[in-house]
Amino acid sequence: MSEEDAADEGPDPASGDPTVESVTADVHDQIDPDADERARLREIADRLVERAETAATDCCEGVDVLQVGSTARNTWVSGDRDIDIFVRFPPDLERETLERYGLKVGHETLPDGHEEYAEHPYVKGTVEGFDVDVVPCFRLESATEIRSAVDRTPFHTTYLQARLDDELADDVRLTKQFLKGIGAYGSDLRTRGFSGYLTELLVLEYGGFRPLLEAAAAWHPQVELDPEGHGRTTFTDPLVVIDPTDPERNVAAVCSPTNVARFQHYARSFLDAPRTDVFEPDEPAPLTESDLQTHLERRGTTPVAIQTDAPDLVDDQLYPQLQKSLDGVTTGLDDRGFDVFRATAIADETAVILVELAVSERPAIERHDGPPVHVRSHADGFYEAYVDAPDTYGPYIDGDRYVTERPREFTTARDFLESDRLFDVGLGAHVQTALEDEYTVLAGEELTRLCEEFGRELSAYFDPSP
Amino acid sequence: MSEEDAADEGPDPASGDPTVESVTADVHDQIDPDADERARLREIADRLVERAETAATDCCEGVDVLQVGSTARNTWVSGDRDIDIFVRFPPDLERETLERYGLKVGHETLPDGHEEYAEHPYVKGTVEGFDVDVVPCFRLESATEIRSAVDRTPFHTTYLQARLDDELADDVRLTKQFLKGIGAYGSDLRTRGFSGYLTELLVLEYGGFRPLLEAAAAWHPQVELDPEGHGRTTFTDPLVVIDPTDPERNVAAVCSPTNVARFQHYARSFLDAPRTDVFEPDEPAPLTESDLQTHLERRGTTPVAIQTDAPDLVDDQLYPQLQKSLDGVTTGLDDRGFDVFRATAIADETAVILVELAVSERPAIERHDGPPVHVRSHADGFYEAYVDAPDTYGPYIDGDRYVTERPREFTTARDFLESDRLFDVGLGAHVQTALEDEYTVLAGEELTRLCEEFGRELSAYFDPSP
Repeated sequence: MSEEDAADEGPDPASGDPTVESVTADVHDQIDPDADERARLREIADRLVERAETAATDCCEGVDVLQVGSTARNTWVSGDRDIDIFVRFPPDLERETLERYGLKVGHETLPDGHEEYAEHPYVKGTVEGFDVDVVPCFRLESATEIRSAVDRTPFHTTYLQARLDDELADDVRLTKQFLKGIGAYGSDLRTRGFSGYLTELLVLEYGGFRPLLEAAAAWHPQVELDPEGHGRTTFTDPLVVIDPTDPERNVAAVCSPTNVARFQHYARSFLDAPRTDVFEPDEPAPLTESDLQTHLERRGTTPVAIQTDAPDLVDDQLYPQLQKSLDGVTTGLDDRGFDVFRATAIADETAVILVELAVSERPAIERHDGPPVHVRSHADGFYEAYVDAPDTYGPYIDGDRYVTERPREFTTARDFLESDRLFDVGLGAHVQTALEDEYTVLAGEELTRLCEEFGRELSAYFDPSP
Repeated sequence: MSEEDAADEGPDPASGDPTVESVTADVHDQIDPDADERARLREIADRLVERAETAATDCCEGVDVLQVGSTARNTWVSGDRDIDIFVRFPPDLERETLERYGLKVGHETLPDGHEEYAEHPYVKGTVEGFDVDVVPCFRLESATEIRSAVDRTPFHTTYLQARLDDELADDVRLTKQFLKGIGAYGSDLRTRGFSGYLTELLVLEYGGFRPLLEAAAAWHPQVELDPEGHGRTTFTDPLVVIDPTDPERNVAAVCSPTNVARFQHYARSFLDAPRTDVFEPDEPAPLTESDLQTHLERRGTTPVAIQTDAPDLVDDQLYPQLQKSLDGVTTGLDDRGFDVFRATAIADETAVILVELAVSERPAIERHDGPPVHVRSHADGFYEAYVDAPDTYGPYIDGDRYVTERPREFTTARDFLESDRLFDVGLGAHVQTALEDEYTVLAGEELTRLCEEFGRELSAYFDPSP
């Protein structure tokens, strides 16, 4: 997204420049579901809840059915088409039985649905263009008794339904769109941003979109919010929002420090110069091969990459594994003197760990410090091992130690990445399996081969914005 | 010097291999002054002392004259031709008067002598092939009252003359020659090795050459010797020998950790395999240009050097300045990402700082971490400064901070060394003046230009031994 001068004096309503009010009114027009959309959603959701209730009552006593999520709370952004239906079973049910009943209810509610697996198995399907999940959980007295994360969801819905009036719900929608625009919306492990529930709590806590932005502009992490004043655990995250339904949980735990700072940056920038484009996710043009070559020349770094088939995993499993592999590979390179300048991991059909190095080559030899001369048991062994080694300089003495200069194992990053030593670094399990099967090392201009599959990702990498 | 297997079981006298006894007997034949040399030295020294006494008594009451140093103590190595004559004036003399009297006595003793300046001015001359110094000092009751280092010398001579019998004096000579052979003899600031006085104290303390070597082979620094048991200060040096004439002085203070370890190494190696070549200073053949090229190719390092006219200073002033300049230049290179592999400073007609780098080139850009986004006063300024900078990537956010990637000042070591920024590093004062006047940067194969002047130094650098 393009960026105005963040230090401007702020908008001047008399000038005809956009104001927070004028911009948010425009955005509301775009994102608020209209009466038709609401009615249609209401009608379909009611029908599905009823169907699920009938099926549930058939298999078990003491069951109830609840619509949850943003479409239940009037906080969905127009065009979002998720209907979440939770079937709550009595807590004394065996977990196995709950799963069996849950799938039965799911299939009866969504005859064309299929099974998926999160914390429990559940049924997912499409009804008149809406994505519907039918999820079983336990009906508990309090969120602190939960046995899995899904059990918590109904408590969130109950808490928010009681507190979000229409005006706040409007502001939740606005805030969600703002976070989508700046790329910080979503608690999936690829984005590590603000979840819908976190967004709702923040709007509720600060009393609206604008007060939230004004507060965020002045945040001094650690920022801790505790709407119910019942927190009793210490967290190290920059943003801490104690779950009103669970005093031991930080709702913002998954939100990365970068996304907290990003939200702060855009909050300031938007209040200084209100504009609609902040609400529009950035869609960079894919980087062309010649753009890439221009960047490489201008930067003078040494790019290397390893490319392999992407492991067949959902994003929430894939991205932590990619991150772990990225950390491992960059540590392996740094440890061997190939200073890492910047790096990223990206995936689509293939998975790529891309590393820009600040050092292209190391000498043929490396310094190898031996023991102090006075530690005779070690010193004699070291001296003996190297005194006649044909490719080694020394041993000589530096300070109190023997030192030799011996041949280095790897003089280029490619040598290392193509060697078995790559598998000594920490890698995500499925990434490791994929690499063991086959991988390619790309260096220098060979990186242009990535442009077709990863043009947008490379564009974002080489033109980084806040 | 060539090196035998240090882990051998030790010499076997029955085998006909050299033993410590047979080797030291051979060395004694080489280094002990014969009766003629002793007699000639005695005769000349006595004549000069007498001449100095006559001259001294003429200008001042209460003066005495003392021969000091190794030729006074029977510990000189055959061929050393230094006669040191100290003229001791009463302590109530003004320093200026002492200096005037001292020069007068010096010139009358050495009519062809010339003045030099150490702590006081003194007169130096040549008499029948001997180098003679006539040095004025104060005659004090105790070495703790000294006003300058020269006042201490007579106390050392008195102390040692009373304790070194002929046998110990023989062993002092042997030890001096051993230290010369391994390059660790001399307390000048180029060598930073063992002084004559330190050598004498060590032989005295351990009771001879062989017991000293056996002790040194097992040293665990910090090694502290205090012959008079009067030390009262704590030192951090690896070897501490409290001066018997001054409880607050470590006689081994100037001896570098490397030379202490070197002595230990050769003590072990000699006891394991006694041989005469340890007593012969290494005279490596000068490195040829083609040898140098072979080394550079084999090492794969990036050599750079700065060469300038050597400042006109005595070694004890020059070498500390060279060392300071070397530290400054290597720090300057390291700080800019040109990792220093090994380096040395050498001087003859010209002074050279030679640095081998492990990194030949850096990228065109460098990462520049800005302030945390939440520190708004700094963050806004940083963001503004870079958001429109044409050659800069970012600002983007990493963790809680703004980061940019901006052009680097220097992408090669030569660029840095040829720039004015060279003068931002710590340089020895006279070295700095010489560089300000003119200097040349050499890189890669241009280093061969140093072979003619510094062939031996380069040979020692590229073929380092303990």
